[in-house]
Amino acid sequence: MPRPLRYAVVLAGGSGSRFWPRSRVRMPKQLLPIVSARTMLQDTVARVAPIVPRKRIRVVTARDHARAVRAQLPALGRRQVLVEPEGRNTAAAIALATLDLMRDRDDAVIAVLPADHAIDDGPRFRADLRLALDVAERTDALVTLGLRPTRPETGYGYIRPGGAVRGTSGRVAWVEAFIEKPAPRRAAALLARGRVLWNSGIFAWRASAILGALRAHLPALVAALERALDRRDPAALAAAYRRLRPVSIDTGVLERAARVAVVRARFAWADVGSWAALEGFWRTGSNGHNAIRGRALPIDSRGCVVDSPRRLIALVGVDDLVVVDSPDALLVCHKDRAQDVRLVVHELRRRGLERYL
Amino acid sequence: MPRPLRYAVVLAGGSGSRFWPRSRVRMPKQLLPIVSARTMLQDTVARVAPIVPRKRIRVVTARDHARAVRAQLPALGRRQVLVEPEGRNTAAAIALATLDLMRDRDDAVIAVLPADHAIDDGPRFRADLRLALDVAERTDALVTLGLRPTRPETGYGYIRPGGAVRGTSGRVAWVEAFIEKPAPRRAAALLARGRVLWNSGIFAWRASAILGALRAHLPALVAALERALDRRDPAALAAAYRRLRPVSIDTGVLERAARVAVVRARFAWADVGSWAALEGFWRTGSNGHNAIRGRALPIDSRGCVVDSPRRLIALVGVDDLVVVDSPDALLVCHKDRAQDVRLVVHELRRRGLERYL
Repeated sequence: MPRPLRYAVVLAGGSGSRFWPRSRVRMPKQLLPIVSARTMLQDTVARVAPIVPRKRIRVVTARDHARAVRAQLPALGRRQVLVEPEGRNTAAAIALATLDLMRDRDDAVIAVLPADHAIDDGPRFRADLRLALDVAERTDALVTLGLRPTRPETGYGYIRPGGAVRGTSGRVAWVEAFIEKPAPRRAAALLARGRVLWNSGIFAWRASAILGALRAHLPALVAALERALDRRDPAALAAAYRRLRPVSIDTGVLERAARVAVVRARFAWADVGSWAALEGFWRTGSNGHNAIRGRALPIDSRGCVVDSPRRLIALVGVDDLVVVDSPDALLVCHKDRAQDVRLVVHELRRRGLERYL
Repeated sequence: MPRPLRYAVVLAGGSGSRFWPRSRVRMPKQLLPIVSARTMLQDTVARVAPIVPRKRIRVVTARDHARAVRAQLPALGRRQVLVEPEGRNTAAAIALATLDLMRDRDDAVIAVLPADHAIDDGPRFRADLRLALDVAERTDALVTLGLRPTRPETGYGYIRPGGAVRGTSGRVAWVEAFIEKPAPRRAAALLARGRVLWNSGIFAWRASAILGALRAHLPALVAALERALDRRDPAALAAAYRRLRPVSIDTGVLERAARVAVVRARFAWADVGSWAALEGFWRTGSNGHNAIRGRALPIDSRGCVVDSPRRLIALVGVDDLVVVDSPDALLVCHKDRAQDVRLVVHELRRRGLERYL
């Protein structure tokens, strides 16, 4: 039997509002050069391309962003960009891509990569992902990549690893339990005990394994998508999506599946959830006290995150601020409140200031 | 003997750097609409015009700003704008204007008005100024307007009033002492004791009285200006100015003069020394917690001063910030550090970023 082919499915459907004013309704963060000079989507594809040939990469995105995705990835063929009529969280996106892939190859092994993660060590990432794909291929398990926590983060889910998967030198463990995003005190306790891992949301599995798990735990979702795809009618798919309940692959499948393994990954990783998370990625200013991209002049200021591609931003006597400039709007936010940038978006919508969305 | 004519001399020579990025080298604060929809210079002239006919108003400004001054005050004749070759503080500006006026009228009574003060009650201001002019005319004293302190301000000079000037119902007192800008503890003590007044820098005096005092206390300055004016040669005036030592009328003359009186003025006044001083002048935002001019969306933010004529500024979870937007540069400054905005200007100059000055 020939070795199964490896595919990558890039999830680029997010519509995050936490990067306003840089991100907008039509331009979510994965389509923006937030971490590096390339967009996060371009970085994600480039990062996996050395181990998955481009023609076996698929990108799943929402209708509103399909044009931008194609423009940013001109090397991908038309069929490689899968367009969801609207966002319904990761379970639907993964099911759609899996069903689509299995028409070509029912023995595919798939790496699932969110397009909005920052990873700063490509070779180490690929080594870990390769290990995950190997384990997925060999054991039929659903494999997730886990990261060692470095702070009591309340924005991530955690994984408690159990016994080692044989033949991995302890690098891969069977998952004993998933732990939902914890409250601050619990997050601190988890960090202190040191046994758990962050759930990265990066996965590897056989197409048959994830489809079996989807059928077992979300049968209505799979059935609805299969019926719609059989009709080869965009309107049918749109109608199916409209009725789908949004559910993540984690809560919908992984937390209920029997054979889930976790790779103890070693690359530096961040789910870039807010401007504050970028502090470690941007070069710091001349005095080293602030994370600055673009033009800024900090005076007696520390711990600030500044993004201003065009205009000069002068800071005087301020600490721990996020300042982001854009042509028509500017954000000044306390770094501890970076998650609440979405409140701006809500408020703009409430006031009918759609031009800023 | 006919009643002496009243003149107003508006001092518009400042080159303040504390209103960057709105103020620039060629556009100091008095030429900007910082407090109201008119520029501070226009406000100053409009405020005094009901009691001093426009043709008897003089504006003293620096060469760099003469064109803008004339453009903002088209009703003033060419000779009404007196151009100093360069700024040498208030004693020189007042001496120049006085010498110029005395060619026309040696019995003039002059009101001296800085162009960069904010005063929110025109009628009360004019009543107090009229009283000062009356006392100056009647007593030959140098009269200053004093304001009741409302906070332990360290940025103003103080005046200790002594005995009442006769016939003023206690509204005007002889000055017992001038107190230089105090340290914070002394400012608090001055405020607590309650007897002192802020020195507004608004004056009234006979032309002959101030010229006599200038001759007595700054004889070299007066002599140099007289020689230059006699030659009617701009180059001679420029050469004279180059050699002048900058000195304020307060330290150069008033603190040493014998007969100085102070009016207990009753209008609301602010020497608009920094962005923070504008808090009381701008309408507050919809929730009343921030002073906003232009477009801003404050969320969980208090005590901020925001000036953004064009772009939307969103604030999230920040307190006591000054945020000022301009086409090419933006300021984010802690309100307590508003005086230090000039550090930005110094730093820009040091780095050769002249385009932002």
